[in-house]
Amino acid sequence: MRPLILVTNDDGVKSPGIRALAEALIPLGDVVVLAPDGPRSGMSSAITSLVPIRVKEERKEEGLTVYSCTGTPVDCVKVAINEILHRKPDLLVSGINHGSNSAICILYSGTMGAALEGAIFGVHSIGISLTHHSQDADFTNASQYARIIAEKVLREGLPSGVCLNVNVPHEQKIKGIKICTQTKGRWVNEFFKSMDPKHNSVYWLTGDFRNDEPDNMASDEWALSNGYVSVVPSKIDMTAYEIVESIKHWE
Amino acid sequence: MRPLILVTNDDGVKSPGIRALAEALIPLGDVVVLAPDGPRSGMSSAITSLVPIRVKEERKEEGLTVYSCTGTPVDCVKVAINEILHRKPDLLVSGINHGSNSAICILYSGTMGAALEGAIFGVHSIGISLTHHSQDADFTNASQYARIIAEKVLREGLPSGVCLNVNVPHEQKIKGIKICTQTKGRWVNEFFKSMDPKHNSVYWLTGDFRNDEPDNMASDEWALSNGYVSVVPSKIDMTAYEIVESIKHWE
Repeated sequence: MRPLILVTNDDGVKSPGIRALAEALIPLGDVVVLAPDGPRSGMSSAITSLVPIRVKEERKEEGLTVYSCTGTPVDCVKVAINEILHRKPDLLVSGINHGSNSAICILYSGTMGAALEGAIFGVHSIGISLTHHSQDADFTNASQYARIIAEKVLREGLPSGVCLNVNVPHEQKIKGIKICTQTKGRWVNEFFKSMDPKHNSVYWLTGDFRNDEPDNMASDEWALSNGYVSVVPSKIDMTAYEIVESIKHWE
Repeated sequence: MRPLILVTNDDGVKSPGIRALAEALIPLGDVVVLAPDGPRSGMSSAITSLVPIRVKEERKEEGLTVYSCTGTPVDCVKVAINEILHRKPDLLVSGINHGSNSAICILYSGTMGAALEGAIFGVHSIGISLTHHSQDADFTNASQYARIIAEKVLREGLPSGVCLNVNVPHEQKIKGIKICTQTKGRWVNEFFKSMDPKHNSVYWLTGDFRNDEPDNMASDEWALSNGYVSVVPSKIDMTAYEIVESIKHWE
């Protein structure tokens, strides 16, 4: 039986990144795309509970079915696995995101929200992003690595509760894959303050990433700025096990 | 100098839970509430980037200033620390959430999104939730434990990159605090399928939590169902360090 591959993203079903990804994965199995009907960047693991969501079949061809959904990336994964697919997928790939999701951005990313949700379902899951925001970015390298890494995961699997956060540098010459850790750092100068027509202050989210460990050669930021595809195994269990004992005296 | 305490939530600035929390914390320091102007449940760590956000001062009294914000819980934390507060807060407390955020719900929770964001800023941060959804739930116990735990955190601090996920059982008799791990499990039967007036299918998110380790006495679900306040130290670094070496051969 051919593998069943669920593809989603947070840039929306019509974005060039998800098209490139679906094409790259068709040789590996039956691909079902179920993705938001428009942009859902920065949606993290958000879910829709106050209103119902809808799913629409957009097109169907040999080895590829495409649905759009009114919900978030996580909603897409949930509704695909609960309601649309005839069986649990063998692989979930989310992306290819227009823009990096390295370092702390995993927490804000809808692309990675979907990949983490796959891991909650026990589906081997990958989120993949290109370090370039442009609509006409070149997805050639990212597509190639999406396929390479998808093949590895289909063959070897992933441990329970773990998905992969893959980022691909947007440059011609890629040196290879590096297995990394999530870079420590955060965004600074996060708002551009301006006025609305009635002279009320409004705040636009923007900012610069401040890397707190620029020399850590194990970090994903180091890998990306040195021409490697970064792969961070990322887990859904957020417990800080190393702290549990040290605050037991609070009991 | 009195501690500066930032309070936020995901149920909105007018919810009974955040009022109870602010009142409980006023004896400990100067409290600034900056919270969403309406419900933002299930918003996870979502951020608003396509439109600007607004902040409005709602009221000011001795030791308490209250602002509303059009953004998500994470937006509230970001705009408070970047633009509104005159200095970095000594403590962030998010809640008291109407409904549990134990186990995997940390990933979907706006309450915990805000607490994790506090940890990203290097602010000692706590998310606190009551295992009851009702608007007229009794917040007495949860408020009391919010203050107890806030005092401990103000005194002892928390390690870098770690916040606390606190859940309080909604029952009269609480046995005490238990330091726990995030329960393994997931939601099942997640959708209620119905029709819109034009007979199109719509999907409402719902479901039941399936606990994969009901006998794990270290887990937060066990603590809650046995009358304890659960405290899970939770971290912003999602790297599965234990996996990094085992996939190094992919490089």
